Amino acid sequence: MITTMNRIYVNPEYAERFEENFRTRAGLVDRMPGFVSNQLLRPANPGDPYIVMTHWQTRDHFKAWVTSEEFMQGHARSGSLPREAYDGPSKLELHEVILDTNNPEMVPEPHGGPFLVHRGE
Amino acid sequence: MITTMNRIYVNPEYAERFEENFRTRAGLVDRMPGFVSNQLLRPANPGDPYIVMTHWQTRDHFKAWVTSEEFMQGHARSGSLPREAYDGPSKLELHEVILDTNNPEMVPEPHGGPFLVHRGE
Repeated sequence: MITTMNRIYVNPEYAERFEENFRTRAGLVDRMPGFVSNQLLRPANPGDPYIVMTHWQTRDHFKAWVTSEEFMQGHARSGSLPREAYDGPSKLELHEVILDTNNPEMVPEPHGGPFLVHRGE
Repeated sequence: MITTMNRIYVNPEYAERFEENFRTRAGLVDRMPGFVSNQLLRPANPGDPYIVMTHWQTRDHFKAWVTSEEFMQGHARSGSLPREAYDGPSKLELHEVILDTNNPEMVPEPHGGPFLVHRGE
């Protein structure tokens, strides 16, 4: 299993609209093969980013998502806040789950090397 | 529910020892009231941190953990790698879970304001 975390630096004045946009998002990712779960995490401390966290069965499932038609659709729709809603560029982090107390018998994700995404923003 | 993420910048030469230390950790946190789950996440990309992620039922449960005797014991034990094993100071982030596809009916964690931890490192 892998996790992807999109670390999004939201201007506090836009936090409420950002959350509302997420609540009403298309949700296309939820039906993709290999999708496990998706969480929206609000930072407690000023300056820390919101995190959109997704769990995927494998890295290949995530790769298939970011090159899918559904991905393009979902991201076109989510770009409805003005540029000043963000305090800086977002950053995508990919992690391999190697231990999980929810699943002590899990096979740790093998180390797959770097994963770089070229983003438009 | 909240998440805590300890973002730990591990020198790649020490990555294996860091993971092994975690595997054999005391695991005292697992038995604390309000503990939900704990994951160890390995970064895919160079320069990104390992993340020790913990889910707690409430912020108060986490506060009780960081001021507990068990916390002191666990951290004394885990400090067995030399200083050069780390490429910089670790950073703790606390987030409030406001949406989770695993639990669509969940009550979003209320916004609790800043949470600052003073750490020795």
